[in-house]
Amino acid sequence: MSQTGKFIVIEGLEGAGKSSAIERVNAWFERHFPGQERVNTREPGGTPLAEEIREIWKRPREEPMANMTELLMVYACRAQLVETVIKPALARGSWVIGDRHNLSSLAYQGAGRGLSKEVEGLSEITLGSFKPYLTLYLDIDPKVGLERARGRGELDRIELESLDFFERARQNYLSHAAADARICTIDASQPMEKVQQDIEDALAEALL
Amino acid sequence: MSQTGKFIVIEGLEGAGKSSAIERVNAWFERHFPGQERVNTREPGGTPLAEEIREIWKRPREEPMANMTELLMVYACRAQLVETVIKPALARGSWVIGDRHNLSSLAYQGAGRGLSKEVEGLSEITLGSFKPYLTLYLDIDPKVGLERARGRGELDRIELESLDFFERARQNYLSHAAADARICTIDASQPMEKVQQDIEDALAEALL
Repeated sequence: MSQTGKFIVIEGLEGAGKSSAIERVNAWFERHFPGQERVNTREPGGTPLAEEIREIWKRPREEPMANMTELLMVYACRAQLVETVIKPALARGSWVIGDRHNLSSLAYQGAGRGLSKEVEGLSEITLGSFKPYLTLYLDIDPKVGLERARGRGELDRIELESLDFFERARQNYLSHAAADARICTIDASQPMEKVQQDIEDALAEALL
Repeated sequence: MSQTGKFIVIEGLEGAGKSSAIERVNAWFERHFPGQERVNTREPGGTPLAEEIREIWKRPREEPMANMTELLMVYACRAQLVETVIKPALARGSWVIGDRHNLSSLAYQGAGRGLSKEVEGLSEITLGSFKPYLTLYLDIDPKVGLERARGRGELDRIELESLDFFERARQNYLSHAAADARICTIDASQPMEKVQQDIEDALAEALL
């Protein structure tokens, strides 16, 4: 079976299990669309230039980063990735599997930092009507997610945020998911096997 | 004599003589407002974080930089500089002397790259109503300016643009200057002494 590739995004808070989910998504595509090109992206980043910006963006530093700076750097990365990687890949029929996309900005910088209006303006200027075909949102209580993420070692600038910040981000994810049939919520607090089954079911329903 | 400091910006194409002008502006402030704090900024850049973004932004590279990426990086730098350096300096009564500001984006990325609508949107989101008190625009024919800039050595990513790009940027500068009494056009093709005299006259008229 083959079909023209689409942009599929995995979203979720730190520690929601995005990395395992992305592995499973790739394996699923390998089984169902064998031999068809797949491009994996991550945001912010995903091109050499965007990864350089990501590195500056993630690194804790003495100089406080203004909220608008943080937001504009994310969109600089996104513009570069969408224009030079995602759109060209979709144009040649490839699947694109994204580790985060615009919903992360709406959740983290919009709801988390109280910049919703600014994020919406930047989305409109940078992306216009460009959207993923399907988003799998891995929902987790931030208390649980951060515990997992912290277990992995050193914390980056974002992971150092307060629990309240992540609570606001989660509520934003949930409200977008409730309003958009193309965003599928997966309960990431379940046992790994059940989470992975739910992911496969969501892919099958949307794509087969 | 003393007064609350204001934000004064020097603008112009490559080779217009911004660096000499800024030296002269500083000397003028030293004479007329001795002992009063002055902060010198440059854009894109002006803080350690913004300078790191500037370095990525300026460096020629194999990966083509999307126009929106270029634009968003400039505004990331600007947001950081305005929020963490310029506004705090003005709030404590300091003068701020800027080597480029928002007009550069309107001219280069707006008119030069055909992104005027996007630049206006980003200006609004990033700066709101924040504006320099006075802008000195050093006007030069890009043929002359680029000749001078090239004489200085290696060209950066922007200086490698076509003459036509700089012509569009110049026309944009001139049209803003014609519409805004707070933008003063200085004929930078004149002999250095005359250019510097015109700069001092403009400062005196606006500030004394």
